Amino acid sequence: MEERPLILISNDDGVYAKGLKELTDVMRLFGDVVVIAPEKAMSGKSSAITVDEPLRVTKMEGGTGYLLYKCNGTPVDCVKVGFNHLLERHPDFVVSGINHGSNSSISVVYSGTMGAAIEGSLHGVPSIGFSLCDFDPDADFTRAKMWVARIFQAVAENGLPLYTCLNVNVPQGDIKGIEVCRQTAGKWVEEVERRTDPHQRDYFWLAGSFKNFEPDTPGTDIFALENQKVSVVPVSVDMTCRETFNQMKTWKF
Amino acid sequence: MEERPLILISNDDGVYAKGLKELTDVMRLFGDVVVIAPEKAMSGKSSAITVDEPLRVTKMEGGTGYLLYKCNGTPVDCVKVGFNHLLERHPDFVVSGINHGSNSSISVVYSGTMGAAIEGSLHGVPSIGFSLCDFDPDADFTRAKMWVARIFQAVAENGLPLYTCLNVNVPQGDIKGIEVCRQTAGKWVEEVERRTDPHQRDYFWLAGSFKNFEPDTPGTDIFALENQKVSVVPVSVDMTCRETFNQMKTWKF
Repeated sequence: MEERPLILISNDDGVYAKGLKELTDVMRLFGDVVVIAPEKAMSGKSSAITVDEPLRVTKMEGGTGYLLYKCNGTPVDCVKVGFNHLLERHPDFVVSGINHGSNSSISVVYSGTMGAAIEGSLHGVPSIGFSLCDFDPDADFTRAKMWVARIFQAVAENGLPLYTCLNVNVPQGDIKGIEVCRQTAGKWVEEVERRTDPHQRDYFWLAGSFKNFEPDTPGTDIFALENQKVSVVPVSVDMTCRETFNQMKTWKF
Repeated sequence: MEERPLILISNDDGVYAKGLKELTDVMRLFGDVVVIAPEKAMSGKSSAITVDEPLRVTKMEGGTGYLLYKCNGTPVDCVKVGFNHLLERHPDFVVSGINHGSNSSISVVYSGTMGAAIEGSLHGVPSIGFSLCDFDPDADFTRAKMWVARIFQAVAENGLPLYTCLNVNVPQGDIKGIEVCRQTAGKWVEEVERRTDPHQRDYFWLAGSFKNFEPDTPGTDIFALENQKVSVVPVSVDMTCRETFNQMKTWKF
């Protein structure tokens, strides 16, 4: 009998998040599943790793038909511990999510969901980060799951180039199709609130709103999402900017 | 009198690191300086942001001729608080470091030093992360500082394209020149140690060694460093992989 593919799953909303369970449900259709997820919510942890403290991993009940672990580290730590120790064999895929909330545009840089997917691609296996544009902890993932399955199948058939992963975002509501996109240029603005604590001391809290620098631009991931399409952005771990590289050749230092 | 440029400085080794003081010394030659650095070491924090907890910022003594703050957040948090609240005007440059240890190749993805530089570029100002290939907390930055000055001047003269920053690494020892490079393909291997605590429970600790996938390849940052050259890699915050993007146009979902 042919061996089923081994799929490593992580996320950044933590081991108890609904989106993780929903992703696991879909992935079990396609292979053997091991889930290693942060024990606490790790939103905004990017590709952070834990270097100064020990990592603890606990096997959990509740994974009927698959293995479920929680880890006190970041999403990237989860993937690293999986590849290096917990998995009996090299996995064939890494999938992350389904994130509660969009990771389109510049959010790819801050996202722990995408941190896990990027880490998977660094280990040489096709990797995908999935997000649903709905922050509700009890969001409805029904439609998203169908697209997760379709995209996973397409990746399984086509493969992905080495050190490239996918950033997939699914709009809430009716879905009108899917589009391969590029990352929208944008950033967070007015992003830190100043407040005063009960002892009259200042503190700050990250907040803010997203500013799209290229609104209504076909081909960008946010435009696709605004038109109720699933956005798929191929993400490279090589961050070298080729255009700037060429321009800088003439620089005098 | 012409206004001197305002330079925001951060790092990931923390506010007490020698490399931060050395970078500040250099930058004061070129402009007015505000330092906002993490109160604890934040190596490996990537572009992590703090969303679930308040940030505290404390003005410190010791910054004669410049402003010095410590913050309980990540390097990116420091930059965000600076732009949004602490700085009296929009800074003209963000510089980060000088990191104790290399941030060449794939380390750009995990580095808090580069997280701060990437964040600076997102705020629309030329930004540079500087690292010295020496992990010694008491490393000798003498030669590195000369190159920091030269590179900063070149950036001040030429500018940088929007949403692009520089990842600069300086070799230890004699320096034979400078090279604009691309990010070396490589990754960390055997990167998690399993150990047993005094209570016979397993724990894990990130460690490992770096594997260069393209050794002896001219044009890569590690090759430049191995040849005692300062490496300068232009880093884009747009992580879209154009090659994969084009390949995927034919995919059926």
